[in-house]
Amino acid sequence: MKQILVVGVGAGNPEQLTVQAVNALRRVDVFFVLDKGDVKQELVDLREEILRRYAPDGDYRVVVGRDPERDRRAGLEGDRPIAGSSAYVESVDDWRRRRADVCAGMIAAELGEDQVGAFLVWGDPSLYDSTLAILDDILARGELGFEIEVIPGISSVSALAARHRVGLNQVGKPIQITTGRRLAKKWPDDVDDVVVMLDAQTAFTQHTDQDADIYWGAYLGTPDELLIAGPLAEVAEEIVEVRAEARRRKGWIMDTYLLRRNRK
Amino acid sequence: MKQILVVGVGAGNPEQLTVQAVNALRRVDVFFVLDKGDVKQELVDLREEILRRYAPDGDYRVVVGRDPERDRRAGLEGDRPIAGSSAYVESVDDWRRRRADVCAGMIAAELGEDQVGAFLVWGDPSLYDSTLAILDDILARGELGFEIEVIPGISSVSALAARHRVGLNQVGKPIQITTGRRLAKKWPDDVDDVVVMLDAQTAFTQHTDQDADIYWGAYLGTPDELLIAGPLAEVAEEIVEVRAEARRRKGWIMDTYLLRRNRK
Repeated sequence: MKQILVVGVGAGNPEQLTVQAVNALRRVDVFFVLDKGDVKQELVDLREEILRRYAPDGDYRVVVGRDPERDRRAGLEGDRPIAGSSAYVESVDDWRRRRADVCAGMIAAELGEDQVGAFLVWGDPSLYDSTLAILDDILARGELGFEIEVIPGISSVSALAARHRVGLNQVGKPIQITTGRRLAKKWPDDVDDVVVMLDAQTAFTQHTDQDADIYWGAYLGTPDELLIAGPLAEVAEEIVEVRAEARRRKGWIMDTYLLRRNRK
Repeated sequence: MKQILVVGVGAGNPEQLTVQAVNALRRVDVFFVLDKGDVKQELVDLREEILRRYAPDGDYRVVVGRDPERDRRAGLEGDRPIAGSSAYVESVDDWRRRRADVCAGMIAAELGEDQVGAFLVWGDPSLYDSTLAILDDILARGELGFEIEVIPGISSVSALAARHRVGLNQVGKPIQITTGRRLAKKWPDDVDDVVVMLDAQTAFTQHTDQDADIYWGAYLGTPDELLIAGPLAEVAEEIVEVRAEARRRKGWIMDTYLLRRNRK
């Protein structure tokens, strides 16, 4: 039976792979990669560095598929989400179906029976990553059979908290992990600690009236890492500027942050 | 300057330490351990296995302090949280202060200037762990100086999702990580996906009227690992029984679960 490993490789520091992930990489015959047209060369380099470091014998192939385009404007008007619109979820579902087509084709054509394939996932496969859903889609079609093994990774959320040396939760309190789109609409109910991923809109700027601290990080674990923390109202503007400048300079950004509301 | 490493060592599988954590262990002069009176021998064994495996030269000391008692009944009436009671948070704060006293004493007496001390933390130091708060407490007292470095780990949440091969979030949707005490009061607003930690009360049994799936796991990553998944209403009773039996047999349990509400 074909086997597919979904391996979390951490947020950017190659030392944040687990021993389990390192051992798994050595078992892999074929690494599958979906490449976007606008390849972020630094992420490609980082992936190659991980393979060079942990699968040094080179006894594997890398198969690259073309990642389908996604409509990143779906459900947005200008930079703001359209209230009640399902266009965003539909566009992601459609994108996922087309990615599943590409992945199914690669697995069918390139992975022999009894071989081990792998997808490397930045961060942790369980958090805002679509690889598992794509593989489930493929299995549900019933044309292709394989076993899935998931190897957890250090998420950007854990990496962020570690670099700022803070806990995500307060004693006995909940944490919500959400998206920039949602935070732009409102601060979630009954939660003081909010972690935001996938925020292209710097949604934190809409909550500077809150008595809250922000712990922000970009390119976590890489030599370009940026960290800013402080009272939200005081540092929001600085983060917006640093973020825009970094994005201009490097052509891409991956960032995340924790908002912590102070309760007297 | 004294240095203190706070090292996440994963949920129970010694292979879930990162390369960064393994390298850090080799720098440590003194491992600090807080031991409870009712020591869970298997967790002590697991910690020793980690040191034997990753710091094999044995060029370190282990200093054990007595973990103060905590009032685990604070804020509870029977098995249920008392609405509006702050007794739970106060009892944890008090416990943390007394733990800080013990830790400050160990660090002052046992760690030389320019030495490296470490606390090993199950899972990830950012998630429902008090080590960072204790060290901040000690620094705030101003009597003792040291640098803190945090090394992230695989949380039991990531380990749970990996073993069940599911994502924690649905497309563009939030996740809430919360406690059994809070879930016993209510299902959080505006969230379909809820991860529960620290649930001694099997709070999921109060939500079997929901159209939801549960993904439950105990002793994750260890040879005793237990996994149950399915529609909440159908498997809740089985989880309660399996959990009680395992706890009886082993004398302790560490478990966590994801509740996923189905939306048509």
